[in-house]
Amino acid sequence: MEDNFFEGAEKLLEVWFGREPPPNMTSSSGSDEEEENIRPKNPDLRDIPRTALESILKMVKCEILSFKRNDSVDAYVLSESSMFVSRDRFLIKTCGSTALLRCLEPIIFLAREVAGFDEVLDVFYSRKNFIRPELQDNPHSDFSLETQVLDSYFDEGAAYCLGRLNQDHWFFYTLAPLLPGKGVSGPDQTLEVLMQNLNPEEMAIFSKAVCSTAKEATEKAGIDKLIPGAVIDDFLFGPCGYSMNGLIRGGYYMTIHVTPESDFSYVSFETNFPNTNYADLVSRVVKTFDPSNFMVTLMANETSAASKLKAKDLVSALTGGSPSSSGDGASEVFKLKELQTTQVKKYEVTFRSFAKAPS
Amino acid sequence: MEDNFFEGAEKLLEVWFGREPPPNMTSSSGSDEEEENIRPKNPDLRDIPRTALESILKMVKCEILSFKRNDSVDAYVLSESSMFVSRDRFLIKTCGSTALLRCLEPIIFLAREVAGFDEVLDVFYSRKNFIRPELQDNPHSDFSLETQVLDSYFDEGAAYCLGRLNQDHWFFYTLAPLLPGKGVSGPDQTLEVLMQNLNPEEMAIFSKAVCSTAKEATEKAGIDKLIPGAVIDDFLFGPCGYSMNGLIRGGYYMTIHVTPESDFSYVSFETNFPNTNYADLVSRVVKTFDPSNFMVTLMANETSAASKLKAKDLVSALTGGSPSSSGDGASEVFKLKELQTTQVKKYEVTFRSFAKAPS
Repeated sequence: MEDNFFEGAEKLLEVWFGREPPPNMTSSSGSDEEEENIRPKNPDLRDIPRTALESILKMVKCEILSFKRNDSVDAYVLSESSMFVSRDRFLIKTCGSTALLRCLEPIIFLAREVAGFDEVLDVFYSRKNFIRPELQDNPHSDFSLETQVLDSYFDEGAAYCLGRLNQDHWFFYTLAPLLPGKGVSGPDQTLEVLMQNLNPEEMAIFSKAVCSTAKEATEKAGIDKLIPGAVIDDFLFGPCGYSMNGLIRGGYYMTIHVTPESDFSYVSFETNFPNTNYADLVSRVVKTFDPSNFMVTLMANETSAASKLKAKDLVSALTGGSPSSSGDGASEVFKLKELQTTQVKKYEVTFRSFAKAPS
Repeated sequence: MEDNFFEGAEKLLEVWFGREPPPNMTSSSGSDEEEENIRPKNPDLRDIPRTALESILKMVKCEILSFKRNDSVDAYVLSESSMFVSRDRFLIKTCGSTALLRCLEPIIFLAREVAGFDEVLDVFYSRKNFIRPELQDNPHSDFSLETQVLDSYFDEGAAYCLGRLNQDHWFFYTLAPLLPGKGVSGPDQTLEVLMQNLNPEEMAIFSKAVCSTAKEATEKAGIDKLIPGAVIDDFLFGPCGYSMNGLIRGGYYMTIHVTPESDFSYVSFETNFPNTNYADLVSRVVKTFDPSNFMVTLMANETSAASKLKAKDLVSALTGGSPSSSGDGASEVFKLKELQTTQVKKYEVTFRSFAKAPS
């Protein structure tokens, strides 16, 4: 392993906030009404001042490099990955040896004290296994420690590992009350494609030696064509490395992060753009970056368009068949290693891993 | 925890054997033909002498208590659970602090040298998380150590954890070649119902204070009615504890093991009896033992009748709805905590966990 090792795999935290319904008037006293009057009418996480976000990011060990917004989302490119703040959802994704979970307590505090939310509706924390977990600060060196931290904030949290324990795998944590909880009511879906061992020719694009600007890298790689119409905020690191956020009409986002070094190359693609069939998008993402192996994760709740997706159909579209069978099209060189699904509360989480067959 | 703690949860190992096809005659020499002549014509694991099996069980730290056979299966009740030996499948399930994986190398050796099999077609190893893993001998104190042992014998083994890492969960390991392997070609299915925190009144049946014979316990509990027609070999331990094997026409088996002590009560039910819908059977098993929480695991390959089963349908039948919804019938007091499926090679593995809703 090179001395300049960098852990590309991100920690991803998504927290949804809500507000307790106002006290029931039939049982309320005068003081309850007064309390209601001092609650902000339209709670919004985007009311949290940038200086406060900067302080939180300092604790996490990263900083803001770039910023774009639209009516729905404030999107930040960070020195280590990305952050998206919308009215009621806080999403942060950080790579390297950042200490992501340090942001949890302050963001819940600020959501309450500044934005006007008084309850956490749902939490999603996930990450791929690290190549070198020993380089992480606690609790990130071990998912069971991360789970302990999350469990210290939330009751009824459920921690899972999808994929093979003895190969690459993916951890996730979410709230899972046994009795129906509040949760996210609108359609919600998150798709990730986590790619490893990528084609060095493709990866060369994401270096200052080959491209002088981020825009040049974005266009050369074809990233601007993945979800047409996305407003792109991209960043090219020196000597190499690349991040981008894309803002998509309707409150959706996409984000891509590239660690191009051949000894530990890694690319992540993430979007909450709704779709009834992600096979075409995943296929184009995989063609764009050309990995040797990759995992696809999809979390979708029952009101999401993606919930109509049959896990098996998606796989068929990607490889032309069932596990261990080959297929046609873009992914014919890939074999499906496994397909796992988890139903927990109103979400279905799907995990698939693919690898190039030995030639 | 009582001083007399006993770990009811079993380690379960199933190994399927095969024989390499005879050398291709077009490329064979005389010596190959001679080699073929000395291979037994009808390899059969039941040719392994009982003394050899007893030696293996001694290594595992258990012994044979009872034995029944039919045309298809030799069924042993062990001091810690059960063993089933059929022509090409060796299945052993042991509880307590037994060292199950110690049998792996000798059984592969005997399958080759005595029974005439020269290849392992597939392997399944699984267990629930232990209540007190620190009381197990290595490697059984930690599934990652067990996986290392299995990986030292087999290439392309895949290790998984289903269920919540931070609550009860279930580990399994199987062979998972990226390119289609040989594997088990006929229909194969294994259903387990692993129950915890059982009704003490029901558990009292499985003690010498209440029943004087195993047969009395079997009938009092209604175990003889679970799969009608099964030929039962049952054993009642003193002061308490119960094991049974059931031989079912067609080469199928069922097996039940009861750890009745209230501080760590545990009951397992297992069968390979084929079915297109296990909801009724699982429902009756749960009614028979009355647990507070239980997990249901099903492994079925694509030629199994159970492969037609839709995981969601089975859950609906059991609880009357999707995760976190309640239902009617026997299981209306239970909530589905999660439903996970794993497709790996030609098998689909389904994991469901249920718990009584807080009243």
